[in-house]
Amino acid sequence: MKITTLTIIGVGLIGGSIGLAAKRRGVVERVLGVGRRRAGLDKALALGAIDQAFLDPADAARQSELTVFCTPVDCIARQALAFADDCPAGAVLTDAGSTKAGIVRAMEEGLPSRVSFVGGHPLAGSEKRGPEHADASLFEGRVTVLTRTPATPPAALERISQLWQALGARVRVMTPEDHDRCLAITSHLPHLLASTLAGIVAPDLADLIAGGFRDTTRIAAGDAGLWTAIFSQNRGALLEALDLFSAHLAKYRQALQTDDTAAIHQLWAQAKKVRDALGS
Amino acid sequence: MKITTLTIIGVGLIGGSIGLAAKRRGVVERVLGVGRRRAGLDKALALGAIDQAFLDPADAARQSELTVFCTPVDCIARQALAFADDCPAGAVLTDAGSTKAGIVRAMEEGLPSRVSFVGGHPLAGSEKRGPEHADASLFEGRVTVLTRTPATPPAALERISQLWQALGARVRVMTPEDHDRCLAITSHLPHLLASTLAGIVAPDLADLIAGGFRDTTRIAAGDAGLWTAIFSQNRGALLEALDLFSAHLAKYRQALQTDDTAAIHQLWAQAKKVRDALGS
Repeated sequence: MKITTLTIIGVGLIGGSIGLAAKRRGVVERVLGVGRRRAGLDKALALGAIDQAFLDPADAARQSELTVFCTPVDCIARQALAFADDCPAGAVLTDAGSTKAGIVRAMEEGLPSRVSFVGGHPLAGSEKRGPEHADASLFEGRVTVLTRTPATPPAALERISQLWQALGARVRVMTPEDHDRCLAITSHLPHLLASTLAGIVAPDLADLIAGGFRDTTRIAAGDAGLWTAIFSQNRGALLEALDLFSAHLAKYRQALQTDDTAAIHQLWAQAKKVRDALGS
Repeated sequence: MKITTLTIIGVGLIGGSIGLAAKRRGVVERVLGVGRRRAGLDKALALGAIDQAFLDPADAARQSELTVFCTPVDCIARQALAFADDCPAGAVLTDAGSTKAGIVRAMEEGLPSRVSFVGGHPLAGSEKRGPEHADASLFEGRVTVLTRTPATPPAALERISQLWQALGARVRVMTPEDHDRCLAITSHLPHLLASTLAGIVAPDLADLIAGGFRDTTRIAAGDAGLWTAIFSQNRGALLEALDLFSAHLAKYRQALQTDDTAAIHQLWAQAKKVRDALGS
């Protein structure tokens, strides 16, 4: 595929990586970057992640053919609806937010019909932030989820799907609700547990912490604002995932209380099988 | 320090690493290795982790000056008490088990007075097993906990402390009960949570799993037998740690249920501060 103008709103780790990957792979002629801070835009320009920088989204909107919102999940719908007002007819918008149902619903309710929106979520990233951590190979071999609802224009979905495949990703299409239910388990719950675990460690235990604790809690170093917004946006599915976890944890607790080593062994072995299948 | 004969019971990841480190650092003249399987002993010999291999512990016991038990926590006390019967007077025994109160209690009840025991636990290792993963630098800069009770002979504690320092470790002395309470939080609980989380993931979610989930559940790939024994041996302290965790998790659940983003933000920020202080 070839895109004339790709616009990226929010040139951090994800947005910067999209820009780098699109240019490195010859997917795009030019990349417009929109950000709130001059410093971040200058970094993205210097790294070659974007070709032109804008502090005012409206200036970019007028020339935008395909736009990816890489801003916090509680900002995306509001920003994208305002942006759409200034876009030419036929423009396609998408996003990279970690929650989907709320964003897609708001977009479908408010978007003018001459502009299309497809929800997206690349399963990549880390606890790091900023364009200085951008990586042209971030999406290679990783899954990007795109959402489909009865209101999703097939041509727009196809176009965004081609974009992500051109960036090296594998595309999986799901409903926004299925995305949120699955990611509540595979991403949001692990973040919640990691944060809870880190939250109970008193400072005097610091030198009794080994590698396992570090691994288990690494993602608790993520940005507080970003994760508050994700938890809040997906709190329904996250609470369901937490109930599932708590029910399974109750089995371990019961086995510990009765010192039922056969039950402990079985619970461990079943989980080990799942984990072994994932690879390191 | 200089040891004439160091005996290692169980030449896996930890035992093999002790042998390699002791020889590499010139701490010991010769290392005797005791194992249940010829193949494991041959690997340890080939790697240079041990100089002489024994399938029968009694054969090694008669020449043992200082012995480290690196076997599963539910075997250590039984094996060490049997071993002590064949040791020369003045022999010092220690271990590398992840739980301490039960082992130290059993040793203090059963050990003949001509032999000393000091409980130990190097906070090193991984989900891998076997002498092929042994590493001479495994203990460098890591903490090894040694236990002290009213019955611990000061000279033996000093000698084992010197051994670990000679292997590159930092030594921290605690009561067995304090060790078990602390490690329940910093190690056993994270393993329990990682295993529970891996245990609820259905196979169809596998391609929606990103790096955070992998990190959080990595230690769930540990050996089922080893972890069943650790959980069982330390189930009292582990259940207390689990209660502490559950109480903190309830705060997150409450904040999610009421969509109290200020509370979510505060919980996340407090945990992030702890995690950031640990480093990557």
